[in-house]
Order: sequence, then structure tokens, then C-alpha cells
Amino acid sequence: MIYLDHAATGGSKAPAVMSAVLAALRCCANPGRSGHTLSLAAAERVFAARRLLNALFDGFGYERVIFTKNCTEALNLAILGGLKRGDHVVTTCLEHNSVLRPLEFLRESGVISYDVAPLTEGKLLPESVLSLVKQNTRMAVVTSASNVTGEVPDLKKIRALLPGNVLFVADGAQGAGHIPLSMKELGLDALAIAGHKGMGSIQGSGALLFSERMQLSPLLYGGTGSESRSLQMPSFYPDRLESGTLAYPAICSLLEGALIVQNKREEWAKKLVKTTSCVLKGIAGLKGYKAYFEPNPVGICAFSHENIASEELAGELSEKFRICVRGGLHCAPLAHKALGSFPDGLVRASFSPEQGKKEAKALLNALSEIAKYA
Amino acid sequence: MIYLDHAATGGSKAPAVMSAVLAALRCCANPGRSGHTLSLAAAERVFAARRLLNALFDGFGYERVIFTKNCTEALNLAILGGLKRGDHVVTTCLEHNSVLRPLEFLRESGVISYDVAPLTEGKLLPESVLSLVKQNTRMAVVTSASNVTGEVPDLKKIRALLPGNVLFVADGAQGAGHIPLSMKELGLDALAIAGHKGMGSIQGSGALLFSERMQLSPLLYGGTGSESRSLQMPSFYPDRLESGTLAYPAICSLLEGALIVQNKREEWAKKLVKTTSCVLKGIAGLKGYKAYFEPNPVGICAFSHENIASEELAGELSEKFRICVRGGLHCAPLAHKALGSFPDGLVRASFSPEQGKKEAKALLNALSEIAKYA
Repeated sequence: MIYLDHAATGGSKAPAVMSAVLAALRCCANPGRSGHTLSLAAAERVFAARRLLNALFDGFGYERVIFTKNCTEALNLAILGGLKRGDHVVTTCLEHNSVLRPLEFLRESGVISYDVAPLTEGKLLPESVLSLVKQNTRMAVVTSASNVTGEVPDLKKIRALLPGNVLFVADGAQGAGHIPLSMKELGLDALAIAGHKGMGSIQGSGALLFSERMQLSPLLYGGTGSESRSLQMPSFYPDRLESGTLAYPAICSLLEGALIVQNKREEWAKKLVKTTSCVLKGIAGLKGYKAYFEPNPVGICAFSHENIASEELAGELSEKFRICVRGGLHCAPLAHKALGSFPDGLVRASFSPEQGKKEAKALLNALSEIAKYA
Repeated sequence: MIYLDHAATGGSKAPAVMSAVLAALRCCANPGRSGHTLSLAAAERVFAARRLLNALFDGFGYERVIFTKNCTEALNLAILGGLKRGDHVVTTCLEHNSVLRPLEFLRESGVISYDVAPLTEGKLLPESVLSLVKQNTRMAVVTSASNVTGEVPDLKKIRALLPGNVLFVADGAQGAGHIPLSMKELGLDALAIAGHKGMGSIQGSGALLFSERMQLSPLLYGGTGSESRSLQMPSFYPDRLESGTLAYPAICSLLEGALIVQNKREEWAKKLVKTTSCVLKGIAGLKGYKAYFEPNPVGICAFSHENIASEELAGELSEKFRICVRGGLHCAPLAHKALGSFPDGLVRASFSPEQGKKEAKALLNALSEIAKYA
């Protein structure tokens, strides 16, 4: 089996990540809930994870690192928790439904309005984002890397063009762990990350980092182990935005994953550019196929065959060649509309940095075989 | 170290639960997101977990089992997602902040009103809940077991007294895995459970089961792997209420935990009644201590010492006797007010079914030693 679906969720975990999860299962104390030795030790691990994520993404303090169950919850917290009635939002057609659906919900509820920047010759131009800004634009939400094409928008340039008062939110689902994401250098007010993709952690982990300019309302209300006498949420972070028992094993795995990312990210990015470059060249030589990506550091290769539906092609790869990829729309309908691949979608092969030529060749051989009978 | 904080989070996990988590980490496919073999296999495990929880709690169909990150999210989904402007809610003073804080938020936002049933001679009487019902009462939220005293309210009787049109929501955080919770027999419209307490699963797992009478709005919007072309959430369950990548390892662990509960719950309940009974007798013989519990199947023993603050007593137990318990208010301020233990709180020792006389005696000996110097 060759797993090429790392953009959906990462492959098997590093030994240190596995060990961290097992240790968390054996410890079994609730961090921040009791004062005994085990609970305090667990709370220290959580604290270490906050500090490391804050350092890795050059954030605004460990208390502004909120643990979530996935990147979707983190994005919802920034969007539903950060916008007010009458706000306007600028976003892009590359966004995932984790950005588009909360925005659409707020729009339908009459709370906000939003506009979507298109692609220009297949690319997101920073100027396209700027051109949508209005008087009441409160927030811009842009992906750090497209989950369809692997395109990495120039966040720094977009920030430079945006008026200073516009809050700048990045969807780090695909970018975190793969590309450098310094919140301060990019001028980000919020960064949502998934733990289980480039960060090498397990499913059930995610985080939102946010600046002092973001005033976030909780989406969930409940026990925080702090100010327990009050029926209101604490006013301080992170407690204000973290109700209920934390996903401690997932947070421990995120801590270990982040440690590895800290050391390996640059090397990984180079390898993934090489691998995607190799696939791109290969596809160019295959009859009937069309590539929808350029070499990229997030490991994504999207393509289609002129005679085979994307889901069918993905199915053939799985069933006949034991290669796992994802067909369809990848929860990013506007990206496919912009690319001209709507409604059938594309096949997306997404690599890990541990993979390389061998897996790329296996994919290309399979595609070549399939094309013979298409 | 003797861990007596199982009401905060369960102790070390059963081998089958550990194995399930490890297998999930090794598999690493995203259930419901791709069509390849690994993803489909993962989706089948998730489906099996839905079916089993539905069977275990006698629910209203596997599609009405929503996976959440904890019981708090499940309760928020039922409360924030299930109430409308003008609704009135009846709840009880035994509730956790995971019930009280969302209700208080809705009240302060001018959306709902609510009333809180008191204790009568230290107990929650079903009649006290009924007496608060008004014309516009839409929902009653009652705990399955108090996280402070271990009291198990008579949900069946409460349901019988409530008008039929009132939605009946139970907080199963402490009850699930310990007491029988048949939704149909108890007339529940929603049951929120934590995975990591009585259910023997890991932190990061929880679920909401709900009846056809509950119309729930999502709290989070995002990708569901279904109807991806639409910017709106799917109209069908569970997808409508499950945005973003599921916490697959946590769900796999919940499946295994639920399998064990299915076989062991009755036996466990008997053991826990025995253990708590033993602690109760012991405390009765210790000078200066007062018990705030009766023998119960959830393993909770709450008590105070007339001269020692609860957090201090908990600290002594941890530092000098290596016994882990929880002092303070346990995120249930109204329960402590009703019990007369506000604002200092109580010490809560909470046992697992694997523990018994040995651990009870160790606790009692430690309490006796501490009392000598108080």
C-alpha cells in the first residue's frame, strides 16, 4: 500500500509521537483540573505545548494558543468568535469549506457580508484580495497553502497591501509544518493549524494562535477548572476559549510533532518540492493527463485525465495499484470552480517528506497503465 | 501513587483501548474523506462506534450519534444548538458548569430564561424539577450523576412528571459507563457523554445522542466530506453536526471502551457501591470529617474536615500520602452552594471499579493521620 493522502491526514506517526501518546494514556490525569502531582505534571506538558507552538509560529504569547479538536474548530473560533454584525470579510476561492461554510452561515444569518478573490491565470494575486476591501472590511481570511493545488499564496504581500485595521487570519491546515509561518513576520492576527497533517500529530489536535488585536468570543461554554464559582467564562486566555477536558493525548502528540517540525521543516520542504517536481514532469509526459499544480513544499499534486472521472481514477489507483489518493472536490468547491475542474474534481496525490522518487514513480507507472485502457 | 480522581478523568486504560489507539495511529487514514481502502476501513470503525453507542444507550439511530471532543461540546450542542429565542429551561443545582455556563450565556444574551431546582434535605427531588416548569419550558437538563456527591437523580421519575413536550437532556459525563442509561426507557431526547471517564476511553472523546424531536443547529461549520460542492452544511446527520477531521484515535478508543462497558457495567457498579460504602463507614468513624455522599455506583466520595480547607487537604493527600484527589468546587458551584460547602468546596475521592478496599483503607488511614495534626 502506498499512502499518498497526507493532505487529508498524515501517514504513520514518528516514534516520538507514538511514545508521547502512549505516555499520555498511561498517565491519565486531567491537566488543569486538580492540584495533585499527576494533574500538575500533565498541566506542565500542556504548558510546554503552548510555549512551543507560540515559539514555532512566532505568536503573541502562550496564553494565546488555544487547543482545538481540529483546524476547523480553530477557524470557526476566529471567524464566528471574531466577527461582529455589519463586518465585511475578504477571502479567496482557494479556501476550504472550513472557512467558506462559517462565512456563508454568518452571511445567511445577516451578520456579515463577504467577497471572494478569484484566481488570475490559475494563481491568487495579492492585488485580487486588496481589490475587494471595503470601508467595513474587518477581516481577511486566506489559506497558507491550497489543499487542492498546493499553491502557497504570498501572505506577506497580501498583508502589506491590506489596510492596517483589517484583521488577517490564515488557514494553516496545509501550510503548518511545511512552510515558514511566523505570525509577526506575516502580520497575521490569527493562525489556525491542524495537528494531524504537516505537524505530524494525531487526529483530534488543532490550535488557534491569535494576536492582541483579536477579541474572541467562546464558541463553547463550560468548565475550565478556573473561576469555578462563576457561571460566566473566565475573562482570561486560554481558559476563556477552552471549555471542558482537553484532548491531552492529542496535545502531547502535537508537542512532539512540533519539536520534530522545528528541526526538519526546511529539509522536508526541499524534499517535497523535489517530489512534486518529479511528479509534474512525469505527468507532462503521460497522454491524457493534465496537471493542476506546480512544484510545492506541501507535497500536493492534483491532476485529471480527460476521459476518466476523478473519483473513478482514484478508485482504480486504490483497487488495482494499492495507491491511496483522494478524488473529488476536497471540500474546496470554489477552488475547483476557479480551476475549471468543477463539479468532477481532481485526483490529489499528497506526499510526505519521507516519500520520494520511489513513490512518485509508482504513481506515474500506475497512471500510465490506467491510461492505456482509458 | 494511588489515583482517586477518576471523576476528573479515568485512570490507565484497558489493553484493548491502548491497542485500538495504537492501531489508529498506525493506520492514519481520514475516515469519510477519501474513497481508498484505508479511508474506507477507518470509516467502518467510526460507523461501528456509532452503532455500538446507539445500542449501548438505546438511542435513536447511529446517524444520531455525534462525536465531540468532550462532554462539554456535546452539552453545548444540545443546549446552544437546540434552544430558540423565548425558550425556558429547567435545570438543577447539581449541574456542572458545562450545563450552567451555556445556559447563563444564553440568558445573558436575552435568548432564554432558566430556573434551577434546589436540593431538598441534600437530595434532588423529581418534584422540584417539575415545580419550575412554565408554559414556555422547552427543555429540562439534568445530570445522570452529580460529579460532586455521586447522587444519581431519578431521571425516569423526572421524565414521567415533565410535560411530554419538554425536551429532556441528560448530562452523562459521570453516569455513562456506570449506571444504565437507556434513552428510550428514561425518555431522554439527548444524552451527552464523556469518553474518558466511566467509558474507559481517552481524553478527546465524547458524544451526543439525540432523538428525532431534537432539531439541532451546528456549532461548527466546515468540511464534512459530503455535499462538498455546497457552501452550506449538509442537512443530514451526523454530517450536519460533525465538521472537520474526526478525532479518529479517540473514537476507536471509545469503541473499545464501550465494548468493555457493555460487559462489565453491572459488575462495576456493584463494586463501586461497595467501595464508596466502605469509605463512608470509615469517614463516619474519623473525628472532624463530614461526608457529603451516600454509597453510589459512580465511585464518588466527597467530604470535608472542619479545620482544613479542601484544597489544603487535597494537597496533603497528594504530597504526603501520594493519593490523588480533587479539592475545590469541581466546576459545580451551585451544588456546593446547595450542600453548604461553598466557597471552600470539598475533597472528592473518586474510585475506579478496579480499586476497592485496599485503596479505600489507604485513603482512610491518610485522613486519620492528617486529622491528628489538624
